[in-house]
Amino acid sequence: MVKMGVELVPTYVAVLLAMASIVAFATDPTQLQDFCVGVNNPVEGVFVNGLFCTNPAQVTADHFLFKGLNIAGNTNNKQGSNVTLVNAAKLPGLNTLGISIARIDFAPYGLNPPHTHPRATEILTVIEGTLYVGFVTSNSANGTNQLFAKVLNQGDVFVFPQGLIHFQLNIGETAAVSISGLAAKTRGVEHRR
Amino acid sequence: MVKMGVELVPTYVAVLLAMASIVAFATDPTQLQDFCVGVNNPVEGVFVNGLFCTNPAQVTADHFLFKGLNIAGNTNNKQGSNVTLVNAAKLPGLNTLGISIARIDFAPYGLNPPHTHPRATEILTVIEGTLYVGFVTSNSANGTNQLFAKVLNQGDVFVFPQGLIHFQLNIGETAAVSISGLAAKTRGVEHRR
Amino acid sequence: MVKMGVELVPTYVAVLLAMASIVAFATDPTQLQDFCVGVNNPVEGVFVNGLFCTNPAQVTADHFLFKGLNIAGNTNNKQGSNVTLVNAAKLPGLNTLGISIARIDFAPYGLNPPHTHPRATEILTVIEGTLYVGFVTSNSANGTNQLFAKVLNQGDVFVFPQGLIHFQLNIGETAAVSISGLAAKTRGVEHRR
Amino acid sequence: MVKMGVELVPTYVAVLLAMASIVAFATDPTQLQDFCVGVNNPVEGVFVNGLFCTNPAQVTADHFLFKGLNIAGNTNNKQGSNVTLVNAAKLPGLNTLGISIARIDFAPYGLNPPHTHPRATEILTVIEGTLYVGFVTSNSANGTNQLFAKVLNQGDVFVFPQGLIHFQLNIGETAAVSISGLAAKTRGVEHRR
Amino acid sequence: MVKMGVELVPTYVAVLLAMASIVAFATDPTQLQDFCVGVNNPVEGVFVNGLFCTNPAQVTADHFLFKGLNIAGNTNNKQGSNVTLVNAAKLPGLNTLGISIARIDFAPYGLNPPHTHPRATEILTVIEGTLYVGFVTSNSANGTNQLFAKVLNQGDVFVFPQGLIHFQLNIGETAAVSISGLAAKTRGVEHRR
Amino acid sequence: MVKMGVELVPTYVAVLLAMASIVAFATDPTQLQDFCVGVNNPVEGVFVNGLFCTNPAQVTADHFLFKGLNIAGNTNNKQGSNVTLVNAAKLPGLNTLGISIARIDFAPYGLNPPHTHPRATEILTVIEGTLYVGFVTSNSANGTNQLFAKVLNQGDVFVFPQGLIHFQLNIGETAAVSISGLAAKTRGVEHRR
Repeated sequence: MVKMGVELVPTYVAVLLAMASIVAFATDPTQLQDFCVGVNNPVEGVFVNGLFCTNPAQVTADHFLFKGLNIAGNTNNKQGSNVTLVNAAKLPGLNTLGISIARIDFAPYGLNPPHTHPRATEILTVIEGTLYVGFVTSNSANGTNQLFAKVLNQGDVFVFPQGLIHFQLNIGETAAVSISGLAAKTRGVEHRR
Repeated sequence: MVKMGVELVPTYVAVLLAMASIVAFATDPTQLQDFCVGVNNPVEGVFVNGLFCTNPAQVTADHFLFKGLNIAGNTNNKQGSNVTLVNAAKLPGLNTLGISIARIDFAPYGLNPPHTHPRATEILTVIEGTLYVGFVTSNSANGTNQLFAKVLNQGDVFVFPQGLIHFQLNIGETAAVSISGLAAKTRGVEHRR
Repeated sequence: MVKMGVELVPTYVAVLLAMASIVAFATDPTQLQDFCVGVNNPVEGVFVNGLFCTNPAQVTADHFLFKGLNIAGNTNNKQGSNVTLVNAAKLPGLNTLGISIARIDFAPYGLNPPHTHPRATEILTVIEGTLYVGFVTSNSANGTNQLFAKVLNQGDVFVFPQGLIHFQLNIGETAAVSISGLAAKTRGVEHRR
Repeated sequence: MVKMGVELVPTYVAVLLAMASIVAFATDPTQLQDFCVGVNNPVEGVFVNGLFCTNPAQVTADHFLFKGLNIAGNTNNKQGSNVTLVNAAKLPGLNTLGISIARIDFAPYGLNPPHTHPRATEILTVIEGTLYVGFVTSNSANGTNQLFAKVLNQGDVFVFPQGLIHFQLNIGETAAVSISGLAAKTRGVEHRR
Repeated sequence: MVKMGVELVPTYVAVLLAMASIVAFATDPTQLQDFCVGVNNPVEGVFVNGLFCTNPAQVTADHFLFKGLNIAGNTNNKQGSNVTLVNAAKLPGLNTLGISIARIDFAPYGLNPPHTHPRATEILTVIEGTLYVGFVTSNSANGTNQLFAKVLNQGDVFVFPQGLIHFQLNIGETAAVSISGLAAKTRGVEHRR
Repeated sequence: MVKMGVELVPTYVAVLLAMASIVAFATDPTQLQDFCVGVNNPVEGVFVNGLFCTNPAQVTADHFLFKGLNIAGNTNNKQGSNVTLVNAAKLPGLNTLGISIARIDFAPYGLNPPHTHPRATEILTVIEGTLYVGFVTSNSANGTNQLFAKVLNQGDVFVFPQGLIHFQLNIGETAAVSISGLAAKTRGVEHRR
């Protein structure tokens, strides 16, 4: 499947083989699934809480792959920002795993306006540019709604806790790019994508 | 705190103000915490399942910030790879939120060797270079241990489901860099970092 | 849909509009569902763990509404009590949300006899009358089974922790009425109604 | 503790006794707690994710009781509404049980303005008056932010799913009263109150 | 169904009857399922995350029963060990309950080789023989991968935390037998078997 | 630590070494704990929801070991049964892992009387003797409380779903012994032992 440099073989393949021999014995007596690759509408008009699964026997590595997060989104819109979200709709192997990834492109002074993810925490790192980002606490934390905000430069990482209203604003004169991981810990209505 | 371009004000500040006026009314009757910023050893020799929390009244935006994910890790080691992990030990605001972020640097032919995260799913995107990545299923899925592997180029995204043994190998002659989000969905022994 | 008094408009509609403009930008990259309105038997003889969902495109506000909790239940029975339970069977929008509400009517000296909700905590408030209520701990708490009981009057609130045997008894000579919220935190076999 | 009518004894006490004899044998080998009654600051300046627990040996039935939900809140304020929330701060036995109860009083045309509970679903019933209530979906549900709203009269029940922005507005010329149960299903940062 | 000794009746049946009369009143307003007995492929080619449920009206006590854990597994293989696993595939009532049981037979010096259960903790007791067992921590615990291992004799109990690589080795010259309970606490991709 | 037969070395140690070399590279970026070995009262009079943890640097393999499940319990009591429960109080490594194990001894016609585990499912296998066992559903399952009961012989396995009232009765004229695994899936008030 992949032609590796010859010098690679003696060093690394031994480790891979050792792994293979070990896992050959492995068992998972709990009978839980490793994954449930999402599929839409296998039965017309019938919906479950989340997605139906692809037949496990037909799952391939391609179900776990998405291509194109290096492509800038089009920020030529009113807010001057664009979210490229890779979720189970685009990467079916993500279904049920509770994680997704997003690239946000910002035009100069572009804004990803105040919004909330009712069921996910977001961790963001700036790849390029300068952002002003923040979130507002619900008033159960400190008795008041409080803004926590920072200016972020390249390589900075910031976290937006689950369910809190937050925003990202490009305060530089050049385009900005960020990458976010989003993780859901809720047990509410989980789409399982 | 941040000097914004004047042209920004009429457009965006209105939205921010609207948000502020709304959240000023908000209440969270469920009495859950928005966050629990981690702190080490407030009581000598006493440990809880996870970290103790910083006094909420002393939490600032800096608790949610980490600087330096743009700095390449040192890959001058036996495996030729380096994981820069941003977790609650480095970014205390992550405590209890179940998410972390990592940068992996690879020397040419560097390997992040087979390993497992017992309690987390990983989603990875290639920032630079070409990786050969994969995971092995537990034998509950298809009756056999099966390798799911792909060659990833810049902008490709791949997911490694929770608890499965996986690896990443730089198969290019140049350095490679990736960014991963890691999300924990387990209820096992949660460190709450 | 509803004719509001004219004096309402300048004061409140501004806030509603501000909200509308904000949420117009909102995104939820985690791809979780906001709800899964329950529907019975879309496929004859096929059952899932919980209910199938109504086609999201056909969900209306009526799916989140139940009428009639103000109507007294008939207590003309052996126990002299009647539970009017509003769950997903009667209010399909409750499906998966883990909450339900109940009205209990008591004839004089009527009893809601000792029982347990294997997967829910109950919080009860007395609307009318005087109840003697209590629960018994499992013996893991204090080493013994212990009765925690109180007499409740109008406006009193009492909580019955999940899975513990409990009861409510009208000790007054007049009818009594209570309202309970019931919340499930279990991950056991969740019906998702 | 409570003087019951004499005619009650032969009928009901037998059942209570039967229960007592049964639970006298009960064991809970899983070693989970039945409750963790909240207590503030047993160690000065030390905070955990949630509350510390009261010494189980000192827990009494009063820890599970709150008095006064029948008392109208003061709506003489700008919004013309008042939320009386019974949570672990007021009813320590609620700690960790993931449920709370609230009474909302509305002056004529009073508004409980748009807000969100990041970690709770709310179920509300109208005790008195006429409310216009609604919530807005996140755009993951149907692709758009959609308002689901209804006019509620006495005895109507409505549910507001977790994390969605919602409001309640008195559209009548008289005062209105509602009772809500709030249940948290999230695993985010749980205050355990 | 079962002929009990006559002397049993006066002593125990009273308790059973008392229980019956109590549960006759019980209600579970939370509308969660007590169980979801698994069934395979009720709709050809359609898969859900876990198993579909047997029609509850057709569930019998036999769905909760498995016979044969007293039968020794065949250890005449390369590793000299044999795992007899009772999971939802063999005991459909286990579906969704997150627990399974296993018998492991060991030939002299037989090995259940290093493996991991990505989503389950295992508790093991030795019925017969002498085992050398252990697990290796992930390096988040103590900074290093550490082996925790013990020699177990008859009646000894050992626990292998979720997701950690572990093994069991018969170090005696005779056959050995163990019984394990396996419990899943993860919320990852739960097969619900 | 353990003297293995010489013939064992060439066959098995290679696998163990391979494992060791692999895990030497492993990382767990999610920063969750592998375990939280329970300890009582490190701070006088202070209680958390669950147990405090032993200092991880002082954890040894002995914390994961319990001795004596082969010893018959004393059934010379009114019920003629005895439960030997191994939980975190006796095996501190179990803390937070949500599993425990129990041995039940029965005198002839001995009864483990009707009881419920509010937060755990139980799976039981008969080691010796003949038991009559059963559970009663809550009435949410089939509309009625229904008894599911079976006679179990040696090697039979039966499951008692979480929170349901159940019992085990020795219907033989000889002593009986069973082993149970108990697993908690609730999120109620978890003692984390």
